[in-house]
Amino acid sequence: MRPSRRAPDQLRPVSLERGVVKYAEGSCMVKFGDTHVLVTATLEERLPPWLKGQGRGWVTAEYGMLPRATLERTRREAAAGKQGGRTVEIQRLIGRSLRAAVDLEALGERQITVDCDVIQADGGTRTASITGAWVALADCIGWMKNRNMLKANVLRDNVAAISCGIYQGTPVLDLDYAEDSEAETDANFVMTGDGRIIEVQGTAEKTPFSQDEFLALMELARKGVARLVDLQKLAVA
Amino acid sequence: MRPSRRAPDQLRPVSLERGVVKYAEGSCMVKFGDTHVLVTATLEERLPPWLKGQGRGWVTAEYGMLPRATLERTRREAAAGKQGGRTVEIQRLIGRSLRAAVDLEALGERQITVDCDVIQADGGTRTASITGAWVALADCIGWMKNRNMLKANVLRDNVAAISCGIYQGTPVLDLDYAEDSEAETDANFVMTGDGRIIEVQGTAEKTPFSQDEFLALMELARKGVARLVDLQKLAVA
Amino acid sequence: MRPSRRAPDQLRPVSLERGVVKYAEGSCMVKFGDTHVLVTATLEERLPPWLKGQGRGWVTAEYGMLPRATLERTRREAAAGKQGGRTVEIQRLIGRSLRAAVDLEALGERQITVDCDVIQADGGTRTASITGAWVALADCIGWMKNRNMLKANVLRDNVAAISCGIYQGTPVLDLDYAEDSEAETDANFVMTGDGRIIEVQGTAEKTPFSQDEFLALMELARKGVARLVDLQKLAVA
Amino acid sequence: MRPSRRAPDQLRPVSLERGVVKYAEGSCMVKFGDTHVLVTATLEERLPPWLKGQGRGWVTAEYGMLPRATLERTRREAAAGKQGGRTVEIQRLIGRSLRAAVDLEALGERQITVDCDVIQADGGTRTASITGAWVALADCIGWMKNRNMLKANVLRDNVAAISCGIYQGTPVLDLDYAEDSEAETDANFVMTGDGRIIEVQGTAEKTPFSQDEFLALMELARKGVARLVDLQKLAVA
Amino acid sequence: MRPSRRAPDQLRPVSLERGVVKYAEGSCMVKFGDTHVLVTATLEERLPPWLKGQGRGWVTAEYGMLPRATLERTRREAAAGKQGGRTVEIQRLIGRSLRAAVDLEALGERQITVDCDVIQADGGTRTASITGAWVALADCIGWMKNRNMLKANVLRDNVAAISCGIYQGTPVLDLDYAEDSEAETDANFVMTGDGRIIEVQGTAEKTPFSQDEFLALMELARKGVARLVDLQKLAVA
Amino acid sequence: MRPSRRAPDQLRPVSLERGVVKYAEGSCMVKFGDTHVLVTATLEERLPPWLKGQGRGWVTAEYGMLPRATLERTRREAAAGKQGGRTVEIQRLIGRSLRAAVDLEALGERQITVDCDVIQADGGTRTASITGAWVALADCIGWMKNRNMLKANVLRDNVAAISCGIYQGTPVLDLDYAEDSEAETDANFVMTGDGRIIEVQGTAEKTPFSQDEFLALMELARKGVARLVDLQKLAVA
Repeated sequence: MRPSRRAPDQLRPVSLERGVVKYAEGSCMVKFGDTHVLVTATLEERLPPWLKGQGRGWVTAEYGMLPRATLERTRREAAAGKQGGRTVEIQRLIGRSLRAAVDLEALGERQITVDCDVIQADGGTRTASITGAWVALADCIGWMKNRNMLKANVLRDNVAAISCGIYQGTPVLDLDYAEDSEAETDANFVMTGDGRIIEVQGTAEKTPFSQDEFLALMELARKGVARLVDLQKLAVA
Repeated sequence: MRPSRRAPDQLRPVSLERGVVKYAEGSCMVKFGDTHVLVTATLEERLPPWLKGQGRGWVTAEYGMLPRATLERTRREAAAGKQGGRTVEIQRLIGRSLRAAVDLEALGERQITVDCDVIQADGGTRTASITGAWVALADCIGWMKNRNMLKANVLRDNVAAISCGIYQGTPVLDLDYAEDSEAETDANFVMTGDGRIIEVQGTAEKTPFSQDEFLALMELARKGVARLVDLQKLAVA
Repeated sequence: MRPSRRAPDQLRPVSLERGVVKYAEGSCMVKFGDTHVLVTATLEERLPPWLKGQGRGWVTAEYGMLPRATLERTRREAAAGKQGGRTVEIQRLIGRSLRAAVDLEALGERQITVDCDVIQADGGTRTASITGAWVALADCIGWMKNRNMLKANVLRDNVAAISCGIYQGTPVLDLDYAEDSEAETDANFVMTGDGRIIEVQGTAEKTPFSQDEFLALMELARKGVARLVDLQKLAVA
Repeated sequence: MRPSRRAPDQLRPVSLERGVVKYAEGSCMVKFGDTHVLVTATLEERLPPWLKGQGRGWVTAEYGMLPRATLERTRREAAAGKQGGRTVEIQRLIGRSLRAAVDLEALGERQITVDCDVIQADGGTRTASITGAWVALADCIGWMKNRNMLKANVLRDNVAAISCGIYQGTPVLDLDYAEDSEAETDANFVMTGDGRIIEVQGTAEKTPFSQDEFLALMELARKGVARLVDLQKLAVA
Repeated sequence: MRPSRRAPDQLRPVSLERGVVKYAEGSCMVKFGDTHVLVTATLEERLPPWLKGQGRGWVTAEYGMLPRATLERTRREAAAGKQGGRTVEIQRLIGRSLRAAVDLEALGERQITVDCDVIQADGGTRTASITGAWVALADCIGWMKNRNMLKANVLRDNVAAISCGIYQGTPVLDLDYAEDSEAETDANFVMTGDGRIIEVQGTAEKTPFSQDEFLALMELARKGVARLVDLQKLAVA
Repeated sequence: MRPSRRAPDQLRPVSLERGVVKYAEGSCMVKFGDTHVLVTATLEERLPPWLKGQGRGWVTAEYGMLPRATLERTRREAAAGKQGGRTVEIQRLIGRSLRAAVDLEALGERQITVDCDVIQADGGTRTASITGAWVALADCIGWMKNRNMLKANVLRDNVAAISCGIYQGTPVLDLDYAEDSEAETDANFVMTGDGRIIEVQGTAEKTPFSQDEFLALMELARKGVARLVDLQKLAVA
């Protein structure tokens, strides 16, 4: 029995709300249960120096957590003077995941920066961030289309992400914090709307796992992502 | 005529919503028009080293801004590796302002950290932060009272803050960004519920101002703070 | 009775000595009693990037304190790897105060950097710094005039600053450290030669103060600044 | 045809040389073709603060690259003043991977720090590091056994790692730099001696991949790791 | 002919003024011509962690330069966020030089920190700093003796330093900036009152030098240091 | 009797191996007994900004130590976030030493960066670094000559370095760690192939030393450097 009484293949209540802040070209408040992330997408007519003059654009991401998004207060990274290893790892993952579905040539010589700021954290902040980031990105691209800034299609497909894990011997979908801190194995899957894999990260938190266990997790993830993609389509419709 | 068509002594629509995040001992989402700040208050049973063993507690504040709280994206301070001068100035002001109304002996050897994170900025983020921080602090102290952690009254009085300025020759209350960027003079007033002054900061943005002009601003501030204190009382009732 | 036996409206002995270092375009050793600050003004034919090509110049300030300017040794900020919040706050104040009296168009596309380094601190280092900084700035502008580098008048007026506070119930002028550490209220006033206000900062160190108390402090400040402006005029004559 | 003319399931020449530096309790020079990593294991009778008094030890890792390990000189991270995101990601992976095979209770309240310094990089530095790190760790644990410092078995199993990828449409094992920079998909597998999975990281560098493609990579990895584990056993025999 | 018209073995006018700041236990304003350094010595009843409980004290030094001590303004190290290589090198040299003449056991478990801040720089700031630092140190030790804090003699001998160099083919003593920037060879000598060597640093700025040239410089230095030691004795008498 | 049973004027076994890494334009593994340093020389067609357009090139050096090069593990400077004072001092020395023998005009507008990374440290890492750095530099210049990139001779002479010290009353050559940590006096000499001095650094570790003692050390150094220069000539032949 999961602490939240969910079925093993059941997501938490998910909501994806577009257009939640005033200034950003794209934005989304994404909620996976008690995990809430505010995502904004910023369009800028400039590129990192190493990319200039190649006829391609860039999509990058930054990730942060408000100090009291967590059960105990976490030190503010700006005050600590640097981003922690976990932060760096997550924001690199978000950026890579989005770029896999973006036609950078079609974007043109521009940069879109996606900021994911966790307002409240109850497990799965990176998967919620990626899922919401795609909506904010789509929102931003819609903004550009409305201004006739794009000639071709920039977004090739949807991108969504979900975590799975083996909790008390059973493979379960979309771990919350109570499960995550107890799980034997934890895996994050980033997939496209057509069911292909962009990124897989599986980690044995306690004991190494077998290939069969891994495939069971991948099967759960496939279902979860399909559901998230449906919700994304509703959100941007 | 003000860009927002407000009367010179009219606040923007203000809301103060308590209990907006799950984990914090106290919290408040404060809105002064399009300026939105999420404030949390964290209680910790520890003190900065220089304060240990003196029978007194401490209240401190940190301030941050989400990168796309602003019209153009601002660089994330955690990525830049340090807090800017403006951030440091504001968080020191918030901490000082709150401490002026707190009985640190009655608090006991504990620290309350108030985090003010600007979700959207349209002028007056420091005054909104202080006004909302008092509510989050009161919320946190209520939490302590419910657990019988306090013997005496900790909060001596309300604390609220408002900006005033001279815009196109006229003293006006609660400047939004459109006014603030054009104002000749800008002043922030932090006051108590009984109308006394905790902090005054007046700056000639363009040309120096006279004592009479300053007094006109102070008069406006007095009215504005009185209104904010009424709203605080409703919020914590 | 003040610890220094001064009358409530009496400044400490003030001296403003120009031309105290060999290389700087302008310089001033300012002493407010035992508070000694060495100020230099550096002219450079370059501008911060965000100001280039606008036909205007810039005046900025930096502030520092020698480690043993204080009763107990203070950690060297260069060794700590960053400037503290108080330092940042003060140097921003000095820069803003000077710019309020400078015609940046008349200065032309050049930058003047004012460095205020506290040799010995006995309260009031920021007000002494501003008062001395104006002399160093005037010295630097004189240097430029002697070289026919300026067509119009750059300095619109004098700028001087003084602190006031309520010490044992009495409003007093120009607090030294013994008073400052005991004062109920502390305020700094930056004013022009013609008596207008550039910056006001009033802080309730212990208990909030009334408007009448504040006005009494402002009255004292007006007298003190007038006296400082007289001394500045003598210094640059 | 692979640039190195290897068969799709062929490793580069691998060598694992123990005891290569004088002072370390364990060490290994690992070479995967032209990728050379010097690994040392340091035993210290101290623990990170958050782990003290729990009857368990700790294994952690740090990773670095000599500036001219690469085709073009890379900036020295010590001079840049911080470790880059890629470095942080890799050293966290190495530490997690080793801990999955270590009985931390049997280790006792001690820390082993594994340092992986890349002398020359030709792709696969993280997988070579993990594979060599296990040898240095085993070497260190042998050193402890020789001094009767351990009562129980600390190392539960071997740990080795290998990369796979889809290069010009074909799944291949152990990518060198020429392949890695061209591969459509890149995955790293960390596995135990008995064939279970510790960590899987698969990334679509260019286009998302299917589940079948992923399973083909996993099959290759299984073969490669089995071969590496055989070489580890020879090295520590 | 030297630019200053001095004889080859002639020092610049040297002054060593004790007791120049109010709070420090020891202080000295040292001038070698236009090179002016303010030195303070701070006594603290604490030690660096690695020295605790060994019955010995410590003497250390820090060095800094005011931004406009130089012909062109130098960036403030506190603003740059770190001490430059030259600063670190000089402060390590000053500390080592002083410790060579101090009986650390006789000092007891205390630390003396010597701060050397260059007010104006015209070459030879490190030798002026060392020479003045010895006076400030002696001043501080006198302060301790007056309070009966010392049982044995702490200062074993004088320590003074001077630079020499080969300028236009001639060995000269005490280089000023005009000479230093043109010298073929530059050497700094730190010596005791009885003529022994504490530290020698000789550098070929342009072309390598012969042993005979080096011995000529050492001979000049011996004379210069003897003169400086006489002046130190006068200063502390 | 020296711990290593060497004669007072006997070097440790020295080896200088060229071409030890794949990518660098020049490289050398230098060993002075158990002190091993990997040196690479990187040629880049760019210059530091302050040197551009002057028709001259630049040679600079960086120095680092692997964490377990030492008896006890040293903290990684990249993780500490800065290079320590000793590191900065040594890399500045290496750069200055090499430049004294390089014709920067003949090099042309290019930079050579020499990286010295200590693999194992047993005393004398800076002298081994300089001696090996000259070989890597010569290797790099050979690489340039083979590509007809140079018109004139760039290397004017050999540069080698050795330490000497007074160990148990006797002047000895090439101190290892056991001697260095006990020596009364420690001196490093950097000399050219024709016996002239580039840099001398002598430090009284315990008690000041006499001129005669210093001359005895210099005599030993002269012999040692002559032997090292012979070995360099063999290495680059």
